Amino acid sequence: MNAVDAFPNAEIIAVGSEMLTPSKVDTNSLWLTESLNALGVEVVRKTIVGDDRERLVETIRAAFGPGKIILLTGGLGPTEDDVTRDAAAAALGRTLVFSDDILTWLRERFARFGREMAVINERQAYVIEGAEILMNERGTAPGQWIDHEQMHIALLPGPPNELKPMFARDIVPRLEARLRKTFIRALFYRVAGMGESDLDQLIAPVYTKYTNPVTTILASAGDIQIHLRARCDSPEEADALLHEVGRKIEALLGDRIYSRDGSPLEVIVGRMLRDRQATVAVAESCTGGMLGQRITSVPGSSDYFAGGFLAYTYAMKTALLGVDPEMLAKHTAVSDPVARAMADGARERTGATYAISVTGVAGPDGGTEETPVGTTFIGLAGPNGTDARRFRLVGDRARNRTFAVQTALDLLRRRMIF
Amino acid sequence: MNAVDAFPNAEIIAVGSEMLTPSKVDTNSLWLTESLNALGVEVVRKTIVGDDRERLVETIRAAFGPGKIILLTGGLGPTEDDVTRDAAAAALGRTLVFSDDILTWLRERFARFGREMAVINERQAYVIEGAEILMNERGTAPGQWIDHEQMHIALLPGPPNELKPMFARDIVPRLEARLRKTFIRALFYRVAGMGESDLDQLIAPVYTKYTNPVTTILASAGDIQIHLRARCDSPEEADALLHEVGRKIEALLGDRIYSRDGSPLEVIVGRMLRDRQATVAVAESCTGGMLGQRITSVPGSSDYFAGGFLAYTYAMKTALLGVDPEMLAKHTAVSDPVARAMADGARERTGATYAISVTGVAGPDGGTEETPVGTTFIGLAGPNGTDARRFRLVGDRARNRTFAVQTALDLLRRRMIF
Repeated sequence: MNAVDAFPNAEIIAVGSEMLTPSKVDTNSLWLTESLNALGVEVVRKTIVGDDRERLVETIRAAFGPGKIILLTGGLGPTEDDVTRDAAAAALGRTLVFSDDILTWLRERFARFGREMAVINERQAYVIEGAEILMNERGTAPGQWIDHEQMHIALLPGPPNELKPMFARDIVPRLEARLRKTFIRALFYRVAGMGESDLDQLIAPVYTKYTNPVTTILASAGDIQIHLRARCDSPEEADALLHEVGRKIEALLGDRIYSRDGSPLEVIVGRMLRDRQATVAVAESCTGGMLGQRITSVPGSSDYFAGGFLAYTYAMKTALLGVDPEMLAKHTAVSDPVARAMADGARERTGATYAISVTGVAGPDGGTEETPVGTTFIGLAGPNGTDARRFRLVGDRARNRTFAVQTALDLLRRRMIF
Repeated sequence: MNAVDAFPNAEIIAVGSEMLTPSKVDTNSLWLTESLNALGVEVVRKTIVGDDRERLVETIRAAFGPGKIILLTGGLGPTEDDVTRDAAAAALGRTLVFSDDILTWLRERFARFGREMAVINERQAYVIEGAEILMNERGTAPGQWIDHEQMHIALLPGPPNELKPMFARDIVPRLEARLRKTFIRALFYRVAGMGESDLDQLIAPVYTKYTNPVTTILASAGDIQIHLRARCDSPEEADALLHEVGRKIEALLGDRIYSRDGSPLEVIVGRMLRDRQATVAVAESCTGGMLGQRITSVPGSSDYFAGGFLAYTYAMKTALLGVDPEMLAKHTAVSDPVARAMADGARERTGATYAISVTGVAGPDGGTEETPVGTTFIGLAGPNGTDARRFRLVGDRARNRTFAVQTALDLLRRRMIF
């Protein structure tokens, strides 16, 4: 039903009850996804299943389909818990056969390390009827490769240091020999200054017309990522398709696109400051350091970060930034004039080219009728003067702070464009 | 065939093509696993599937089984890509019905924030026939709960800040009402000031003797969490077991345990400051605002956060904090005397009870033979004087900064204990 299905696609099945605990991340599947993508293969489903033979048989069968590449990782050890060999054989309707070659290899391997081979290791000498055996240079679990009807199935060891060399040496060439050559090209935009549904409404009329490239949209507080991925028989074709769709999206989004190489906003802003030999200071109230932290998360940011003030209270706004106490009393701290005065104070005291201020009600408490929770003012002082903008954020405390920081960085970016 | 199957078990299905990229980790499923385990529910399979309706229908059907708990996360947004509602309805053989209640709620939600509702958001008002609607306080995607034959199925939003409160409020009580009564009691310690392997070596002789309670140790930069979970037929039995093991662990760890209720260090330190009617200021160099950000992430922190200085350069250490330029020239910024001078400067300028300073080489560049990357000094000024401590951190830039902030907060905590 989906254009992608015309291309080769893969499923990854990780086996092992230990992979189902709250702290365990299946990093193998991330690495395998990257390697498969590089071959032009999409991963369409990833499953983690415990050491349960029946459930694994059923999971493998669910992955069956014409042209499918199915990679199983783990469960090839010598113990009762290691059910992958057995389950894969059952799913394929084949038998397990004992391999004298593997047994000889295992015995030699143990002998070479001066160790006695335990009897249970003999379980590792069973292979699926008709499988090609993939030797394991780093461990005792051989891998297996099976071409079955129109599918390709690999059984791979779980430890990353065994899996990765085996994949590179034995799986990559087998896949290349079996796959139609396709080329994948990608475009990647990051966008600030608009919400996900507004963005989608704006660009959906463009991208929904195309099943190739595939468009994916990802949003977090104040930051949206757009991925376009084209897959064609030649790189020229893929580039042409991407260019066609990308041009239309860029025309709609304009300077709301801040990054085309995946770099986050703090890196882009840092690069712009460095190019202009400019510096920036911060004056933070409700974000309490989060803005400075974002700017200085970039190595080398001391080239352009001039310093900052965490002025959380009225008294500190006056003492650290010179904000007039009468202004605070009259307008409150969450106001346009105070945001400007904070930015001006930070710029003067640090001698920076630009200064950004953030003052707002992050919540959950502290809102009033006039300045409800989420009200945030961002001030920006620079060589061409000072201004401030009011925003109304709608998340919880953490999200409001993150959004305010993203918006503050974006305002500085826009100021530098013009 | 498996003992685990005697207990209620769950499958987690994460939906979204972006979850199948090489860099994306499904952290929701880790959190859900922990939460389900706490209810005595085992997770037997986790699946990640792209925005493909047919494949999702098939994945949901594969999870069916008597007593099964099936949690779907993601794919509830307003766009064409969001296929979870539709696929779950198809898998269950039910229809989707339009809910005027949700539409009204969505309209009110948008109106409350002064925004226009996009037409595509109406898609979010479709619910599976017979489902209970779970309101979403943090976003526009309502969740759904369906009791179907002997199974329990929940559709939950993907963003963690929407998923977690909905799970706690709507899913936990529904599961508790449907599960066989076993009693689970938990103890939870958070520990600062030691590494994971040191801690494990210290307490493993205690906890490895017990299979009930189950002990889990989770470590992140400078912060270790220890969970003990006892599952028994009566709460008294579970409490007695926990008490027996907990007492031994507490004796070994002493005041390195900073929290017994799960509160993070910034909350504990904030509580201690408030109790003592004391305040704290920060002077940050390499952490660039991260320490202030942690302290002010706690609602109400304006009661005790006096303000701070982001003094990233030599010039700013002098201008903002009054650090003697000769001292900087002689000792460099990453030194004991400068850490003390920064803390003293921040304390004087803010009038705070305590001031913490952080100055270090976060990396990747900037290291020298005498002060290699990772060298960090933390200064602490208070009513009983000023001191500084040297640390050698061994992570990357982000981890070193996080570790420095955690250590700084812990030093303040210890100062306040004595």
